[in-house]
Amino acid sequence: MTDSQTLKTPEPMRGFIDRLRDRWDHADSLVCVGLDPEPAKFPARFVNDPDAIFDFCRDIVDATAEYACAFKPQIAHFAAAHAEEALRMLIMHMRFRYPLIPVILDSKRGDIGSTAQHYASEAFDRYGADAVTVNPYLGRDSVQPFLDRADKGVVILCRTSNAGAGDLQDMVIGGRPLYQHVAEKIARDWNGNRNCALVVGATWPEQLREVRAIVGDMPFLVPGIGAQGGDVQAVVTNARSADGTGLIVSSSRAILYASKGDDYAEAAAHAARDLRDEINRYR
Amino acid sequence: MTDSQTLKTPEPMRGFIDRLRDRWDHADSLVCVGLDPEPAKFPARFVNDPDAIFDFCRDIVDATAEYACAFKPQIAHFAAAHAEEALRMLIMHMRFRYPLIPVILDSKRGDIGSTAQHYASEAFDRYGADAVTVNPYLGRDSVQPFLDRADKGVVILCRTSNAGAGDLQDMVIGGRPLYQHVAEKIARDWNGNRNCALVVGATWPEQLREVRAIVGDMPFLVPGIGAQGGDVQAVVTNARSADGTGLIVSSSRAILYASKGDDYAEAAAHAARDLRDEINRYR
Repeated sequence: MTDSQTLKTPEPMRGFIDRLRDRWDHADSLVCVGLDPEPAKFPARFVNDPDAIFDFCRDIVDATAEYACAFKPQIAHFAAAHAEEALRMLIMHMRFRYPLIPVILDSKRGDIGSTAQHYASEAFDRYGADAVTVNPYLGRDSVQPFLDRADKGVVILCRTSNAGAGDLQDMVIGGRPLYQHVAEKIARDWNGNRNCALVVGATWPEQLREVRAIVGDMPFLVPGIGAQGGDVQAVVTNARSADGTGLIVSSSRAILYASKGDDYAEAAAHAARDLRDEINRYR
Repeated sequence: MTDSQTLKTPEPMRGFIDRLRDRWDHADSLVCVGLDPEPAKFPARFVNDPDAIFDFCRDIVDATAEYACAFKPQIAHFAAAHAEEALRMLIMHMRFRYPLIPVILDSKRGDIGSTAQHYASEAFDRYGADAVTVNPYLGRDSVQPFLDRADKGVVILCRTSNAGAGDLQDMVIGGRPLYQHVAEKIARDWNGNRNCALVVGATWPEQLREVRAIVGDMPFLVPGIGAQGGDVQAVVTNARSADGTGLIVSSSRAILYASKGDDYAEAAAHAARDLRDEINRYR
């Protein structure tokens, strides 16, 4: 490395997976705080706030950071509200105030390679996210522009949390469902930069166990706790890795909207802390 | 319908598929002009234009409208450039100047239902698109918020144009590849509002023929002509519907960047016209 390069990057950035492992250890938490802002659910004090989306999300971030292994803003909630600037500012706030907490942009993008380059640029350059969720249906070359960003995380849909997940993901190929083939392809062929993680829904404990058996200690992003009905004990006992980590257990609505009163931030902090403690009981 | 409702909606909007069929007939064209703006490829005159993305795309739209059955802006190209407002203005321009030409927002979205609602709102309410591309990997309930908008088109990925398309889409289930099951599910179960179309890549003529045999006259959005190597004759002869239509043949780079000189708009018009004529020779 030349001197000028050293000046430009004085502290070589650790990759997403390493930073996630560091955070699991330091915070002793597998809780991911999902940021799905819905202004109609905000406390009354935000009614006349022109920056309500940013202000509310920032308060939640500040209240829950202590208990978070990751933050996960969901981009559709910002896009539908024309709030790209709020999203950009929010991620900037996360990175400056909480540089040890990785930010996963939940956008589930997927397109042919030349277009996927632009989606990678959207997530990593425009918004500065540390990781992004992507959809595997278009195949490996569609994910390659994300995989090539070795310092960034690529969180690939495997078995999603929704009721209709099985429509395609459970179709049986050579005796095994599609989602298991997806898990195997990613672990075997797509993970050369060791920067992959998988989305596996909390609503499917059996599938969590099966995917864990296929991919070793690859991290899982696990949505579906709480509002969607996933059970914490079943998730942790079925899906933790050998060292009792391996999970990014995402909760959005149960934390964000824990109270509609002026104690919304405190209530969010309690919800995040309680989830951390419940998870830790079963690790 | 009450009088007040009549006043609000004096001309009930025909649905996307009907409007597309009308346009195929009236324009005698199956050409879809894809808008994938890449400022580095723009003619020199746009170098100092702060609204280069909007201005360039508007010029292309105006030059090619005569030959277009649809316009297809690709959202990643706008998002990576922080150009949501240019996209919104561009679609507004299309709808006001060319109200008979449907606009397909190419965003390939896919998420659980409660989030998919926000993506549907992004495409149809924020941007005012007539149709949107979506990814089927999460199953029917993830597409339902789009399907429920009966006047809007839902263009679902089936067999994509990229080299790695087969990684998942060709996996064989019960003797048939996944993409054929996807086509069948959509035609049989997801198309209750008759507002579905499929993405099938121009680079796979054999697969185009097979999918056409499964879904009858459902429209295909066909990317991959030109830069990606798809052959026009093979596409049209394999994939046209019984009445010689059924195709939205998308071309982006070959039209947008037909000339880097001051004749870029004229060159784009010629490229669109030539493609229309080439397609029509084989219908």
